[in-house]
Amino acid sequence: MAGTSNKKEELRIGLIGCGFMGRAHSNAFNRVANFFDQPLVPRLVAVCSRNEQQTQQFADTWGYESIETDWRALVDRNDIDAVDICVPNHLHCEIATAAAAAGKMVLCEKPLAMNSQEGETMCRAVEEAGVANMVWYNYRRVPAVMLASQLIQEGKLGRVFHYRANFLQDWTISQDVPQGGAALWRLDAAEAGSGVTGDLLAHCIDTALWLNSSIQNVTAMTETFVKQRLHQSTGELAPVKIDDACAFLCRFENGSLGVFESTRYARGHKALYTLEINGEHASLRWDLHDLHRLEYFSHDDEGRLRGWRSIHVTDHDGSQPYMDKWWVPGLQIGYEHTFVHQVADFIDGLATGEPAAPTFRDALATQRVCDAVLESAESGSWINVLQ
Amino acid sequence: MAGTSNKKEELRIGLIGCGFMGRAHSNAFNRVANFFDQPLVPRLVAVCSRNEQQTQQFADTWGYESIETDWRALVDRNDIDAVDICVPNHLHCEIATAAAAAGKMVLCEKPLAMNSQEGETMCRAVEEAGVANMVWYNYRRVPAVMLASQLIQEGKLGRVFHYRANFLQDWTISQDVPQGGAALWRLDAAEAGSGVTGDLLAHCIDTALWLNSSIQNVTAMTETFVKQRLHQSTGELAPVKIDDACAFLCRFENGSLGVFESTRYARGHKALYTLEINGEHASLRWDLHDLHRLEYFSHDDEGRLRGWRSIHVTDHDGSQPYMDKWWVPGLQIGYEHTFVHQVADFIDGLATGEPAAPTFRDALATQRVCDAVLESAESGSWINVLQ
Amino acid sequence: MAGTSNKKEELRIGLIGCGFMGRAHSNAFNRVANFFDQPLVPRLVAVCSRNEQQTQQFADTWGYESIETDWRALVDRNDIDAVDICVPNHLHCEIATAAAAAGKMVLCEKPLAMNSQEGETMCRAVEEAGVANMVWYNYRRVPAVMLASQLIQEGKLGRVFHYRANFLQDWTISQDVPQGGAALWRLDAAEAGSGVTGDLLAHCIDTALWLNSSIQNVTAMTETFVKQRLHQSTGELAPVKIDDACAFLCRFENGSLGVFESTRYARGHKALYTLEINGEHASLRWDLHDLHRLEYFSHDDEGRLRGWRSIHVTDHDGSQPYMDKWWVPGLQIGYEHTFVHQVADFIDGLATGEPAAPTFRDALATQRVCDAVLESAESGSWINVLQ
Amino acid sequence: MAGTSNKKEELRIGLIGCGFMGRAHSNAFNRVANFFDQPLVPRLVAVCSRNEQQTQQFADTWGYESIETDWRALVDRNDIDAVDICVPNHLHCEIATAAAAAGKMVLCEKPLAMNSQEGETMCRAVEEAGVANMVWYNYRRVPAVMLASQLIQEGKLGRVFHYRANFLQDWTISQDVPQGGAALWRLDAAEAGSGVTGDLLAHCIDTALWLNSSIQNVTAMTETFVKQRLHQSTGELAPVKIDDACAFLCRFENGSLGVFESTRYARGHKALYTLEINGEHASLRWDLHDLHRLEYFSHDDEGRLRGWRSIHVTDHDGSQPYMDKWWVPGLQIGYEHTFVHQVADFIDGLATGEPAAPTFRDALATQRVCDAVLESAESGSWINVLQ
Repeated sequence: MAGTSNKKEELRIGLIGCGFMGRAHSNAFNRVANFFDQPLVPRLVAVCSRNEQQTQQFADTWGYESIETDWRALVDRNDIDAVDICVPNHLHCEIATAAAAAGKMVLCEKPLAMNSQEGETMCRAVEEAGVANMVWYNYRRVPAVMLASQLIQEGKLGRVFHYRANFLQDWTISQDVPQGGAALWRLDAAEAGSGVTGDLLAHCIDTALWLNSSIQNVTAMTETFVKQRLHQSTGELAPVKIDDACAFLCRFENGSLGVFESTRYARGHKALYTLEINGEHASLRWDLHDLHRLEYFSHDDEGRLRGWRSIHVTDHDGSQPYMDKWWVPGLQIGYEHTFVHQVADFIDGLATGEPAAPTFRDALATQRVCDAVLESAESGSWINVLQ
Repeated sequence: MAGTSNKKEELRIGLIGCGFMGRAHSNAFNRVANFFDQPLVPRLVAVCSRNEQQTQQFADTWGYESIETDWRALVDRNDIDAVDICVPNHLHCEIATAAAAAGKMVLCEKPLAMNSQEGETMCRAVEEAGVANMVWYNYRRVPAVMLASQLIQEGKLGRVFHYRANFLQDWTISQDVPQGGAALWRLDAAEAGSGVTGDLLAHCIDTALWLNSSIQNVTAMTETFVKQRLHQSTGELAPVKIDDACAFLCRFENGSLGVFESTRYARGHKALYTLEINGEHASLRWDLHDLHRLEYFSHDDEGRLRGWRSIHVTDHDGSQPYMDKWWVPGLQIGYEHTFVHQVADFIDGLATGEPAAPTFRDALATQRVCDAVLESAESGSWINVLQ
Repeated sequence: MAGTSNKKEELRIGLIGCGFMGRAHSNAFNRVANFFDQPLVPRLVAVCSRNEQQTQQFADTWGYESIETDWRALVDRNDIDAVDICVPNHLHCEIATAAAAAGKMVLCEKPLAMNSQEGETMCRAVEEAGVANMVWYNYRRVPAVMLASQLIQEGKLGRVFHYRANFLQDWTISQDVPQGGAALWRLDAAEAGSGVTGDLLAHCIDTALWLNSSIQNVTAMTETFVKQRLHQSTGELAPVKIDDACAFLCRFENGSLGVFESTRYARGHKALYTLEINGEHASLRWDLHDLHRLEYFSHDDEGRLRGWRSIHVTDHDGSQPYMDKWWVPGLQIGYEHTFVHQVADFIDGLATGEPAAPTFRDALATQRVCDAVLESAESGSWINVLQ
Repeated sequence: MAGTSNKKEELRIGLIGCGFMGRAHSNAFNRVANFFDQPLVPRLVAVCSRNEQQTQQFADTWGYESIETDWRALVDRNDIDAVDICVPNHLHCEIATAAAAAGKMVLCEKPLAMNSQEGETMCRAVEEAGVANMVWYNYRRVPAVMLASQLIQEGKLGRVFHYRANFLQDWTISQDVPQGGAALWRLDAAEAGSGVTGDLLAHCIDTALWLNSSIQNVTAMTETFVKQRLHQSTGELAPVKIDDACAFLCRFENGSLGVFESTRYARGHKALYTLEINGEHASLRWDLHDLHRLEYFSHDDEGRLRGWRSIHVTDHDGSQPYMDKWWVPGLQIGYEHTFVHQVADFIDGLATGEPAAPTFRDALATQRVCDAVLESAESGSWINVLQ
């Protein structure tokens, strides 16, 4: 019997960068239409990175129709609607502004930029060009986190007193881990801008600004535990200039207090992003190692029966975010699905005209907190966050 | 720049059934080549179910090139290598034997059949035809479960004393849930053969036979809590003939004792498949609600520091099964990935000549335990399992 | 300044047995008046066991005023109100009947007796003598378990479908553990009557009969994994006649299904008594390894926010049982407190005339289930429990 | 038969204060000899507080032989060896120095004093008098925490990178909670000195200094969420001058980073003291809500089997601290036992001449960190801790 009749519009994607994030985004573009019934369907038109052979292999694996080895060529192509930036941080600004100038929608990996100045430039570029834009702070789209957001929006917490978040890893404890190169640019300040602040705390800050309120001021502390690492570009020992660990205290605009900490030296934790919010009437907790669960404590429950509920966010009675699109109650989804959700929301945003968050402008607020954190760690003083 | 150069061989799939399992399998066929670099790549050639419009919609969503509305037409096509059976249990035997007779590989959803007699027929059919065959007991391919299997194979548990497994759900507590029809055939004995025994305990038994040893004899108890439900095919109340709950005790060939229980009336549990094995030197626990974790207790640990380890099975130092194919340590995968793994293993089996388990013959052993369980529940006696 | 003015009445205790349970009971008698303000205060008048030196040492440690080495002498003393029996099971019947005949209140460690026949004799003895009597099934008095009982009494669960309980230990895995003697009489059938059935499952059954309903019939399986152990009385290898492990299925009078399992061969579990009850509207779970927590799932909670609550039963807003007597919210109590509660309730029972449960008669019901379990394991048939 | 022959020496106790801590200490004095076989046995000679009737009632409940209503009278008595101070913080210094001057051993509730100046005075007093002294930072004596200390002492963690601790409560969220008076002096700065800093963070700091190393400098933030509360002494609204919440960052002398937070506004937490230490080779976690468990992650475990172990610290194979004195493996103890352990260790210290920690001098170090924290919160600068 004759076959397919898919007549949906296409969102033609050009991806720049073939690393870990390139894979995560490609998977999301490929899968969204299997689970979300939307008017636009992503089409993987081109992928770009410097090594031709690796890029072709990546294209074969993920189904990109063509490759480029110069990002300027990709940005200039007429058969692409959206440019997706998955390269190290120091290239975000130049590519994003060029893509905006070329009239392309721009999706950019987090953090937005190397610093707020670059971020401001990028915001102006996309806003002046009037192109859709989004930053991949994907953890907003964990169903449990989105559910937390809904509860907060509905006022279930009442006045908020405390927000605390950690992002703990342990992969750089050995001093034998080198810095630089395709896999380890995150340890090289020239490419990454900062260490855990931009890589990990940026996620925590993005979620906090979204769930709680803006941050007024901060006091911070950073440390670099391993002072020198072999640099892969030179083959020689070089000073490590990123922050291995960073902690900060802050005050939110709504009067609540924040405590944030991140490190790559917390033995036993791989990607333990945890957050907790304590409100007058209820509290919420979540962690990335069991991302399908939301912990919820309600003071409204009967006194003798109060306790933290472990909500297994896999149950679609129609009201848990995103989960009606997947399997059946009890069957969990994982990390990669957050990107699928973000693509779906981006497409919805195009359809409705209400852009999916975080936009570049939203992400700039996070960048400003990161800048203040790093400045405070340097100066030893409380720093006000520019708004 | 010119594009893709994928020259891999294809495994041409014909899927029968567009329900929940049809989705899970289609997703697996679509994704396996993104993550597993194998010589064969599934191609979705045709999908079949009775309603043409729904089938076309399913084909559009998942990328099937054509549709059929009669499974016999699909089985007869020359452009299909493997038939995948995702229809209610009462059709497994007829379709599988026809597909085998047509020289097709046969993949079949679990349980294998309505009973052992049918299962034996199906085994003979695929064995006589010499076609590859496999049953989708997907939970073997949860990385944590596969890791458990490896530990047991390596002898880390020593002599095994106890095996216990539960599969607890709560979705049929309301007597307003009807029986029969596309969505609820699992409640209709005519289509399902049995209730929780074939649907849920079959998973527990399959894993147990694989991880522990064969089962010698059983004593069982079943119950149907809601005696009548509206039947969707007639619109009238009809007796419920499936088992709503089933528990059994058993003795394994290796001398260990087994306790199994399943129900759809355990308020608070959606798909809580739990298993625990107690050996002389170590014990293992796992549950489906947090499927990315394996609990492990080793008596070899220093005395004062012994405790159950919660192993977050997301860390690829190269030795946790499957996980090197996915993301980075700490980032969990979910339910659907078990099917991707099973497809990958099936393809490996074709390449190596060592068939991926469970084959039809393996699944027949599970069927025989199910039959013994149901017979014991009926007779009130211990029943020996035919080997 | 002059001192104490305590004018309360005394409950004069005579304890028989200086083992583990003798310590637990002595501690309870000593402490109850520090925390419970009651009209009667226990006074430790005499303790009895065969070895004079050990008995004197025990008396010194716990504050007993005198010792005996013949239990008949203790039973005959006029300065004792209540005899507390903490000796191996084979002596319960003889001592209890003698104590009752002497007009003493009788407190007896669990299980009540070697079998139902003895139990019946004991019940008649205390009932004919009209003396207060109680069996130390102490786990009823864990605050979390008592809270569970209250919730069930109030109807929060609705119709009950399932009850499951385990009691798992691992201390006899080594075949070098001997049997018999003061410390290991639990492995000697002549003194213990049975193995895990009377020692561990009896606890599970007592709780189940109390929380759920009476048990109608059972099918059971027992195993003795280590067939011979050195007997400490003879210094020679002797057959092990107790059950090392026992599992049974049962039907309760209220229509629910029960699954019970106990063993001393579950590596990694020290005293893991777990129970779970699944009702129409709610479910409850508890385990002895974290005894200060009750897990509670309520279907009445809003759909998207349903989850198992972990209730930390340390919060006295006046409604969690017993906890107003101890510390402040968040500060947990432990194992030994269950005995303090039981003494307090026994004293309350004397004051109110409503005897604290379980009485000998209550405990006889548990004994009858144990007998049926052992008979079923022997015969391989379902056995009706005598009521 | 004739009775007791206890000829042990006595440690004659005079307790000042009949509140919550008076109960906890009295219980510890009463129980220690039941479980610890030591040459000295506490004898409760006298208790003192201002209200005669309440004091007599307390004496009756706990077995004190006499009462006083003026602490100076108690301090002057010749039949008392040790004075135990359980009154609000503002009285610690005066009583402790008087008791030392009278040649009494001095046990003092935490925090040591209102501030470091007082603390220094107290240290000099006990040191010049040459009397035994100790501060009741009882959480050091949780078996799981003591085990953590042993592991750190043995070098199992290697270089330490991070220390984090929280102490979260929720009992003052309602603005209807008054301040001052016998029960609520902790909310009155005049009696308490500070809020959560001295009450809760002091515990966290004491443990950290002991487990990790001294603290060099801090940056802190405090907040008072409810600005006015009715004062029970006047019946009128009065400003709240204590800190409701406090968080601080710090650097330890060993190069590790610290993050500490405490509040009484964390809905859902009653007494959630948590601590975590991340070292090069291993990490440790503990929390007070499940105080009988220690979480331990060892990088030395085989790669694929690494995971956090939940060590149930109830197993006495002779090597878990204190637990050989209590029950049997699997049976947990609770909060009150920490005080029993501290008394036992104090008595051991008298016998061996090696004083039980923390002494006044040890506790002064904690006080100095508290002072620096409060000063930093006031000034907004990093403050060096005086050593």
